[in-house]
Amino acid sequence: MNKHKIINDPIYGFISIKTSLIFDIIEHPYFQRLRYIKQLGMTHLVYPGALHTRFHHALGAMHLMQLAIEHLKNKGHDITLAETEAACIAILLHDIGHGPFSHALEHTIVQGISHEQIGKLLIAKINNQFDGKLSLAMQIFNNTYEKKFLYQLIAGQLDLDRLDYLNRDSFFSGVTEGMVSSDRIIKLLNIKNGHLVVEEKGIYSIEKFLIARRLMYWQVYLHKTVIAAEQMLVKILERARTIGQSGGDLFATPALKHFLYQTITNHDFYQHHLHLTYFVQLDDTDIMASIKAWCTHPDFILSTLCKNLTQRKLYKVEITNTPADTHRIIALKHDISQQFNLSQADTSYFVFTDTINNIAYNTATGNINILMKNANLQDITLASDNSFLQALAQLVTKNIFCYTKI
Amino acid sequence: MNKHKIINDPIYGFISIKTSLIFDIIEHPYFQRLRYIKQLGMTHLVYPGALHTRFHHALGAMHLMQLAIEHLKNKGHDITLAETEAACIAILLHDIGHGPFSHALEHTIVQGISHEQIGKLLIAKINNQFDGKLSLAMQIFNNTYEKKFLYQLIAGQLDLDRLDYLNRDSFFSGVTEGMVSSDRIIKLLNIKNGHLVVEEKGIYSIEKFLIARRLMYWQVYLHKTVIAAEQMLVKILERARTIGQSGGDLFATPALKHFLYQTITNHDFYQHHLHLTYFVQLDDTDIMASIKAWCTHPDFILSTLCKNLTQRKLYKVEITNTPADTHRIIALKHDISQQFNLSQADTSYFVFTDTINNIAYNTATGNINILMKNANLQDITLASDNSFLQALAQLVTKNIFCYTKI
Amino acid sequence: MNKHKIINDPIYGFISIKTSLIFDIIEHPYFQRLRYIKQLGMTHLVYPGALHTRFHHALGAMHLMQLAIEHLKNKGHDITLAETEAACIAILLHDIGHGPFSHALEHTIVQGISHEQIGKLLIAKINNQFDGKLSLAMQIFNNTYEKKFLYQLIAGQLDLDRLDYLNRDSFFSGVTEGMVSSDRIIKLLNIKNGHLVVEEKGIYSIEKFLIARRLMYWQVYLHKTVIAAEQMLVKILERARTIGQSGGDLFATPALKHFLYQTITNHDFYQHHLHLTYFVQLDDTDIMASIKAWCTHPDFILSTLCKNLTQRKLYKVEITNTPADTHRIIALKHDISQQFNLSQADTSYFVFTDTINNIAYNTATGNINILMKNANLQDITLASDNSFLQALAQLVTKNIFCYTKI
Amino acid sequence: MNKHKIINDPIYGFISIKTSLIFDIIEHPYFQRLRYIKQLGMTHLVYPGALHTRFHHALGAMHLMQLAIEHLKNKGHDITLAETEAACIAILLHDIGHGPFSHALEHTIVQGISHEQIGKLLIAKINNQFDGKLSLAMQIFNNTYEKKFLYQLIAGQLDLDRLDYLNRDSFFSGVTEGMVSSDRIIKLLNIKNGHLVVEEKGIYSIEKFLIARRLMYWQVYLHKTVIAAEQMLVKILERARTIGQSGGDLFATPALKHFLYQTITNHDFYQHHLHLTYFVQLDDTDIMASIKAWCTHPDFILSTLCKNLTQRKLYKVEITNTPADTHRIIALKHDISQQFNLSQADTSYFVFTDTINNIAYNTATGNINILMKNANLQDITLASDNSFLQALAQLVTKNIFCYTKI
Repeated sequence: MNKHKIINDPIYGFISIKTSLIFDIIEHPYFQRLRYIKQLGMTHLVYPGALHTRFHHALGAMHLMQLAIEHLKNKGHDITLAETEAACIAILLHDIGHGPFSHALEHTIVQGISHEQIGKLLIAKINNQFDGKLSLAMQIFNNTYEKKFLYQLIAGQLDLDRLDYLNRDSFFSGVTEGMVSSDRIIKLLNIKNGHLVVEEKGIYSIEKFLIARRLMYWQVYLHKTVIAAEQMLVKILERARTIGQSGGDLFATPALKHFLYQTITNHDFYQHHLHLTYFVQLDDTDIMASIKAWCTHPDFILSTLCKNLTQRKLYKVEITNTPADTHRIIALKHDISQQFNLSQADTSYFVFTDTINNIAYNTATGNINILMKNANLQDITLASDNSFLQALAQLVTKNIFCYTKI
Repeated sequence: MNKHKIINDPIYGFISIKTSLIFDIIEHPYFQRLRYIKQLGMTHLVYPGALHTRFHHALGAMHLMQLAIEHLKNKGHDITLAETEAACIAILLHDIGHGPFSHALEHTIVQGISHEQIGKLLIAKINNQFDGKLSLAMQIFNNTYEKKFLYQLIAGQLDLDRLDYLNRDSFFSGVTEGMVSSDRIIKLLNIKNGHLVVEEKGIYSIEKFLIARRLMYWQVYLHKTVIAAEQMLVKILERARTIGQSGGDLFATPALKHFLYQTITNHDFYQHHLHLTYFVQLDDTDIMASIKAWCTHPDFILSTLCKNLTQRKLYKVEITNTPADTHRIIALKHDISQQFNLSQADTSYFVFTDTINNIAYNTATGNINILMKNANLQDITLASDNSFLQALAQLVTKNIFCYTKI
Repeated sequence: MNKHKIINDPIYGFISIKTSLIFDIIEHPYFQRLRYIKQLGMTHLVYPGALHTRFHHALGAMHLMQLAIEHLKNKGHDITLAETEAACIAILLHDIGHGPFSHALEHTIVQGISHEQIGKLLIAKINNQFDGKLSLAMQIFNNTYEKKFLYQLIAGQLDLDRLDYLNRDSFFSGVTEGMVSSDRIIKLLNIKNGHLVVEEKGIYSIEKFLIARRLMYWQVYLHKTVIAAEQMLVKILERARTIGQSGGDLFATPALKHFLYQTITNHDFYQHHLHLTYFVQLDDTDIMASIKAWCTHPDFILSTLCKNLTQRKLYKVEITNTPADTHRIIALKHDISQQFNLSQADTSYFVFTDTINNIAYNTATGNINILMKNANLQDITLASDNSFLQALAQLVTKNIFCYTKI
Repeated sequence: MNKHKIINDPIYGFISIKTSLIFDIIEHPYFQRLRYIKQLGMTHLVYPGALHTRFHHALGAMHLMQLAIEHLKNKGHDITLAETEAACIAILLHDIGHGPFSHALEHTIVQGISHEQIGKLLIAKINNQFDGKLSLAMQIFNNTYEKKFLYQLIAGQLDLDRLDYLNRDSFFSGVTEGMVSSDRIIKLLNIKNGHLVVEEKGIYSIEKFLIARRLMYWQVYLHKTVIAAEQMLVKILERARTIGQSGGDLFATPALKHFLYQTITNHDFYQHHLHLTYFVQLDDTDIMASIKAWCTHPDFILSTLCKNLTQRKLYKVEITNTPADTHRIIALKHDISQQFNLSQADTSYFVFTDTINNIAYNTATGNINILMKNANLQDITLASDNSFLQALAQLVTKNIFCYTKI
């Protein structure tokens, strides 16, 4: 069987699978499962094209990795074929631990364990099945490999993950303003002292990349209606678990049932293989198919929330610089409690507040270093001829206030 | 509430909703349900970007309708605001009767009734709920309205449905060769004696449109792996119904269960409202969530097919001009029967043949008429300076032979 | 003759000419002349695709004007057909006074008069020929018309001129990072108290627009090699004029000869129609054809510069934050003077310094006002949730140092 | 000096110059001259964006050559670095012999010699200057090299020249329907018995390519207004030569003058180096600058034609299947002769006929061979499942009738 396949991608044209090992990893059920987990959860309610999956994103990021390594090699840096394959595998698997609706449901369906931990468990299992052939990829992924730039290509302030997701989310949502020139940025990457750097003439492209990222946060990832729909998903799953934990009757797919009726600790996950077995059977369809069934559930809260989601009667969301007025919250909760005949505690399914954050350039988790023409390194905020990037490195926090219109 | 919304579309930029009635129809649960029915079923197994939905396609077709009507009005044709709104509604609802996985499962889940019939039932119900405001749209849709060109914009050899789906399927799959210049074609439409025609200088664009359509059939819609996956879906649902009809135990979402355990005739559909109520609860997620659960079903055939689909071990498909060799079919069926310990009849779940068709320009269902500079009308095949279009109007039939590798 | 034409544009698809008057103005020789004046002068030496003309840009800006007015009307603002036509004409003619190589040669070929003054002279002449039909356009153009927003659409910090040139320069040069979402920005324009404003949800798009503009300046308009080529053009024309003024013999097209051999004051231009008559015969081809002929001119300086330009042996350009070292300049001039046997004064044809400026958002010439949800207006720098725009409103000045390598 | 440059291209993103020799050839004045020869002559009068040059096209074709060779090498074919460089040089120089306005003026300015012959002369001269380093490139170019597929990549029914010009002409004109999927077609190329072939699954892409080419002929290359403008150029140069030959006074650039005042035979060109020296100084600007000056020439015919061209009063062109009616031609000539007071012979500057041809797939000059899955070769017209390509291989001839409206 010919394992050197070419996959059509509307963004990059064609994505090549270059080794048999990579082909087999892509064919692995753990990876195929990502076909059914949307990259942007419920964002398609606002941007109907945003249905692309973590599967497609992972392939795209691998494609950019191939390009980046090719360019770095052309610049005279030594990167072996084994390292290239390992770096491709590492970025291919960087999101393998994500569950349905990713971030939105990360601590709702499975509480005790993060998607990063699940990811490492799954990669370890694949590695076992492939007789240790993923060991180098795991080293890179865990940042224990000596060539640090390989890790930085996967997880940094300017990694290929971000380049792909900005392009991909922008392309499929139709918010073309989020597009970044991945081709140009990759051509301007270089290595200095083993670390990833950007050549000086790339400064303006990086500025543009940071602004594009800022824009995508406010316009897509933190769009009011997206927040409304994802909060609704969270509340629905919380309610379903409450019912499940108290022994109530609930339709659900077998895999989802496993997580609704039990509380599984971090420890359990590492001890009992069964939990992971169920986890890898979960995807977006389990959630959506179950929610549709719950529209007629006898529990008022559950059925109301489910009907509201499927009929697109979403929370009203207000995003403000200062927290919502406490009196207004109390008044609204009072009205809801009266109208729906609910306890004070249960009103929080319909009225609640939270905060959201956006930071275009987060120096806490790494730097974007510019390789100046004089061979020195400078942080991008200092290398630019304009100080505006320093402002962009500030965290912006906003308050959200969500409530059901009655 | 402001009902004049703008929706981002990665193909056309922005789609406008221009009247409150259209807004309310889009918000209707029957229409929102199309958000969860993919336009191209399992095609995403080959082209991972092809996840776009009938919801998005319907909006896109409506957008093209707005453009087409605007251009026809600019050319001096009289089209009222009421007609414009009705034509938009008619094209918006042209696929409302589709079930999950559309064509692939059309006669598998629901046997006695076509998606066109279901569509008309649903439109009638919406019309009732909106106090008859859809009556004009229904007239256009049923081709009983006097201005025939409005119907031809919805259903013809060169309708806006086709223009949108070619563009959309091409865009999301990344098979850019299927792209057609909808903008240019629309600018070249005109009306003659109440019928839709294309101006003479549009001949080359139409030629290109027909070739693009031919290419999309062979490269996407009838791609080997797409056929393999959709045939697998069909066989799975057939098997599940067989089990359901014989009283076997089957996990399924409530809506899907309704159709697996009963045989509902065309007559039943018209008599009992309940069937339609369940039908509109069905979408792609019911099928996929159930198939995942069936991977562990005790029935060997069902669980094998389901595992094969989810693990992407699809049928091997051969597409040939002459039918597959009978001896080879018999031999393969024999092997399968031995290997899997199956009755001869049941081998047809794993080995079978069928035919597929492609006709770029089907004169049986209407013409593309060219308005020559001398004001005469000519069929496109005669208006072109080259006879190649006559060849394109021929039906091409091929044989497919599908089997499970053992 | 049908004057309602459609013109193909690779950026917007199609540009419509909507009135006979506009058609006739486009056909006017003064406007047709812009077909031979490149928008970006010698930039094509760096970006070979950047050959687009002021003709095409003017059409593109008119197209955006049509879109903008249509959207403003949809938002309930009253704009008459006459105003629409006038605004289209005004923006169509906004660059009509440009000579060959526009800014690069503005004060070299014709010294006493700016392109704005020439533009007004030409518009007045066209207006005469069209019996005053351009009067309203002239009022808008001169900002004497009461609806100020019409002027602001033509000349402001966020006008349609800029939207088109950023998109167009970006498209043809292939520096895709300069692309702005003109479609989205136009949809977010509004009018408040007669002035153009941007709706609050457009803040991120404006941020992106300002960054794109900043990037285009450094990456294209002020690219080292572009500066080198345009400075070479300037020095060549200066030298040719010096020769011409002193009665030397020079091949040149008749129109160019007129300007090389005379010194025409501002006053002369207004007094003698002849100068304008020659001016409108000038375009890029006069300059390039003459420069090729001058490669064999007996004057050493002229022929050397011309050969250097046509053979792409351009100045070496250094762009720095601090001025070039004086000793280095003196030393270089000394070497050149020795090598080429030149007077000290004449070395300035081969060694010289200058400064360049870039300001992404120039509040000195107008504001971008944001219409907040609470109906207040705020300058974009204050309306944004991040202070980085204030930094972008600072002027960045750099020094350039140009010299011929010997 | 770093000679490994990257050039922005709006179509392919970036074009790389991979060897010093290629860099030096691009910098050579013979090649730089192509910067001033438009690929599509006067087509910009219809499609204002179509200003791209033979320089840019040659770079684009070289880029496709790099891609094609890389893919063929990935398929296991042995192609050395020297062959790769030579093939790149050969395609880079394939149009080096073109004069201003290419085909339109090929036998008008220089009569005795074709652009292919001039090209070979120029390549030989460059080869001399580079000490014979172009010898392998010349062998490939002349089809005397053993690996025939390298020649076929440059000149065949499906060569990289065509792929680039279809894409480029389509891109810059905005006639997007001419776009071909060069990326996909290149991926489907292969070599069989030393000859270039297309793999079977590429059949539909080739069909699309042929239709796109057909469309570009009728919609762009043979567009009525393009024919009108180019015929006008031809007639202007014919008239200017007539005047020059008879010793009349004519403004012209030195290089153009050389060709207007003499009749240079093929033999002369090979004997006297001077003719070539002047030839390489000619480009589009010589023609346009001279034509502008001729608008005031005392010869009525010359000045009339020149004014008509610059003011866009082009011939009226009729394209018909049957020749224009002889009586009508005679009548028109009569009217012109009366109106303009011209001899019968001279009316042919204002009224004339000709024929134009279009053949999408010309089997006379080579085949497109399909490599079937069974390893046999078949011509594309037989390999397709539809016979329409046989019709496309027919020559289509039309008549043109051009006249000046009086």
